[in-house]
Amino acid sequence: MNDKKKKPQKLKARLPRGFVDRSAADIRAVDGMVAKIREVYERYGFDPVETPLFEYTDALGKFLPDSDRPNEGVFSLKDDDDQWMSLRYDLTAPLARHVAENFNEIQLPYRTFRAGWVFRNEKPGPGRFRQFMQFDADTVGAAGVQADAEMCMMMADTMEALGLKGQFVVRVNNRKVFDGVLDGIGLAGDDNAGRRLTVLRAIDKLDKFGLDGVKLLLGEGRKDESGDFTKGAGLGSDQIASVLAYLAQDGYEPTSDLYTQGMSELDQIEALVRAAGYAEDRIKIDPSVIRGLEYYTGPVFEAELTFPVTNEKGESVVFGSVGGGGRYDGLVSRFMGQPVPATGFSIGVSRLMTALKNLGKLGDDEVLAPVVVCVMDRDVEALGRYQRFTQTLRHAGIRAEMYQGNKKNFGDQLKYADRRSAPLAIIQGGDERAQGLVQIKDLIEGKRLSGEIEDNAAWREARVAQVSVPEAELVDKVREMLDAQRQDRDRAAG
Amino acid sequence: MNDKKKKPQKLKARLPRGFVDRSAADIRAVDGMVAKIREVYERYGFDPVETPLFEYTDALGKFLPDSDRPNEGVFSLKDDDDQWMSLRYDLTAPLARHVAENFNEIQLPYRTFRAGWVFRNEKPGPGRFRQFMQFDADTVGAAGVQADAEMCMMMADTMEALGLKGQFVVRVNNRKVFDGVLDGIGLAGDDNAGRRLTVLRAIDKLDKFGLDGVKLLLGEGRKDESGDFTKGAGLGSDQIASVLAYLAQDGYEPTSDLYTQGMSELDQIEALVRAAGYAEDRIKIDPSVIRGLEYYTGPVFEAELTFPVTNEKGESVVFGSVGGGGRYDGLVSRFMGQPVPATGFSIGVSRLMTALKNLGKLGDDEVLAPVVVCVMDRDVEALGRYQRFTQTLRHAGIRAEMYQGNKKNFGDQLKYADRRSAPLAIIQGGDERAQGLVQIKDLIEGKRLSGEIEDNAAWREARVAQVSVPEAELVDKVREMLDAQRQDRDRAAG
Repeated sequence: MNDKKKKPQKLKARLPRGFVDRSAADIRAVDGMVAKIREVYERYGFDPVETPLFEYTDALGKFLPDSDRPNEGVFSLKDDDDQWMSLRYDLTAPLARHVAENFNEIQLPYRTFRAGWVFRNEKPGPGRFRQFMQFDADTVGAAGVQADAEMCMMMADTMEALGLKGQFVVRVNNRKVFDGVLDGIGLAGDDNAGRRLTVLRAIDKLDKFGLDGVKLLLGEGRKDESGDFTKGAGLGSDQIASVLAYLAQDGYEPTSDLYTQGMSELDQIEALVRAAGYAEDRIKIDPSVIRGLEYYTGPVFEAELTFPVTNEKGESVVFGSVGGGGRYDGLVSRFMGQPVPATGFSIGVSRLMTALKNLGKLGDDEVLAPVVVCVMDRDVEALGRYQRFTQTLRHAGIRAEMYQGNKKNFGDQLKYADRRSAPLAIIQGGDERAQGLVQIKDLIEGKRLSGEIEDNAAWREARVAQVSVPEAELVDKVREMLDAQRQDRDRAAG
Repeated sequence: MNDKKKKPQKLKARLPRGFVDRSAADIRAVDGMVAKIREVYERYGFDPVETPLFEYTDALGKFLPDSDRPNEGVFSLKDDDDQWMSLRYDLTAPLARHVAENFNEIQLPYRTFRAGWVFRNEKPGPGRFRQFMQFDADTVGAAGVQADAEMCMMMADTMEALGLKGQFVVRVNNRKVFDGVLDGIGLAGDDNAGRRLTVLRAIDKLDKFGLDGVKLLLGEGRKDESGDFTKGAGLGSDQIASVLAYLAQDGYEPTSDLYTQGMSELDQIEALVRAAGYAEDRIKIDPSVIRGLEYYTGPVFEAELTFPVTNEKGESVVFGSVGGGGRYDGLVSRFMGQPVPATGFSIGVSRLMTALKNLGKLGDDEVLAPVVVCVMDRDVEALGRYQRFTQTLRHAGIRAEMYQGNKKNFGDQLKYADRRSAPLAIIQGGDERAQGLVQIKDLIEGKRLSGEIEDNAAWREARVAQVSVPEAELVDKVREMLDAQRQDRDRAAG
């Protein structure tokens, strides 16, 4: 209160680093995309369940890659009772807490999904945001690989529901296979955790650098074109040969039971998805799939878009991963003292939206701009009349707004309507009012469309730019003119 | 990795204080409600725009009631560049930042809406959550009260779109009128800020305690039935008489221009909404409307549900406010050094959902539970076959799932399907497989519905509990049986 007495201090309006606002077009695109994904998940028997954005820090655990220091990677704060809370960095750890907390009420196996914001306290960069949306599906209480197979098929069906048929592949691997390979070259145990991580990171570069590049990264290291040197894992030549033989699936000799068990699980997944009609072009066993999160314990999968895009350097590369997941049998168990198997996957919503935008699969903004009712006089009685026109249109289901700005000039109001892409303007000055008439101006010029149409003489002539009708016929005439415009658009679209 | 070697430390799974998980039914109810609200807003010409959950603390400002100390009421943390960030406590302050930051690109007047989570760092209590959803609409750049009138009509239309016709009223007041009353009794100026707040709080209790109760709270104070004493504002008898005369709109003598100006604005709002067909049963000028937030500068409004509910004490009270808003001409200006008028309102989504639930206006959970495909044999070949049945149903648009749990016993799987409210179970043992048949079991017993139906002999006889069909006819038969169940439900519903 008493604003009039306070000197306004001028603040700088700026978004926090690494955060973005969302435009109408992006919101509508994501809403449409999320609705299609949800439809697939529901058809698979999954139900929504959601958790809040905060969790106790200990309940979330530390599973982010590269986060050894406390609070690294997450936004945390201390509650007034001295307990640390963090904003969730994914939707999996909170689901594990939810299941453990409500274990006695939950009917297992428990198939659920959720879309929500997650946060990473990282250095922001181009295309790297600190708040982004994930859309997850999880099955808790299903120990068999048929649950993992279902995840892969659901991912494939989701990509197809989004119009990406023939432009994606779901790649599947098994963390057990990987751990078996690392055991086999003597990298088991907590002491080797750091080196294992370097090896995993090297293998993760297979797509980018090929077998030769990975070989360097497993050994002493690799120098890129710019001369930057990445230190390698420092493996010996036998160790390197073993890893490469595994990656190429050429002459690898397993020495670990874990490896054999993992491979057998992959065989079962393959048999199940093939039986259900998913061939290698959609779901593919691939020994190079890594997945960064530390909590995976079994099969892991990744949905990759295979169409080419041009990267910052002007090179043509495949678009790449838009989501992934895997089995995390240890995550719920942390709370329970009993094994609770679980598997799930997560879609990166913004990244997938970018992909669909690139492919033109999102469609244009389908929401028509509102009809604008111009304000010719500003006395309360005139305003009341314009307001009534507006409400009448709205109540008839027609998107409409009364001009609310401070421009009194009619031309300025039409300019507003035009910049707003309004389809029609409603005008009533003193003369029309005296006769009980109202004017409707068609703001979509025939010429804007006519360029794209060949045989248009007939309908263009039928279109008039401005008509006068009795007030009582306003709604019908507006509807008729909007219909005519819609037909023009359809004609233009072919 | 290497989970097998780590001793699981048993964590306690618990929600942070004041936060809740959301069930499938609640999520679907809110989604349905939000879709209806959005439809109204879009029809009014509003477009979505969203901001992130974090803002710089200084950009948010301190406008929460009862928050004089720094960080009181909001969750804040220091970014790694030492800037304080806060989770938004409403959707208005972030919108002001968004408009100021993008002022040159934005076409004014700017009508937008957004639904999103907001956070209050308050002591949690029953029904008092620290994360909740608001659904806001705002018009920036419209100085005239016609924009406020539009807000009131949009709120009224929203309530009716949600099925609340005749059960709500939008009450309208003006912060200027109020400030004029306070000026008139000598409470202007920064020195009186604390006392003004106590007066406002007293008046806010008019609904609860009536004029007599407010009188006590404006004076020395009020003792409630339990003997608790609330200290009053300590006004003199002339001051109290003046406030009460204003509240009763009976013999109040305005002494302030601000009051007169505010009243004239209310008259204009009234004229506009009446001209558009909204009578006092829907939009009512009411001198007792307060609205707690400090940033309001002009008209304020509140949507109140008028139907009775029983409170914790067993008393019958009106349900009360589900949303409100007002004009905040100073909020964008803080960043701009130039006046930028704005008005808007906010719906408390959870509270509105509770109201609709109370009234039975949300409808039951409309999503049918999935058809369950039982797993009779567990070899990969059999699993592949069950998986294929499941995928075939899903691809035909039928909600279905293969049993993924560890119970091998058929009866246990049916129990799961039943608890899941599955409409049908699909079964194929060795004998059926040899004949290429599959069994479909109807899990919705006729008797559950028959109690509600009178003339049901014919259709109940036509229903069979279990049928055997060739594999190729699975989809058609499932569809037929689901249709029959749907017809039963419709019959039962009348």
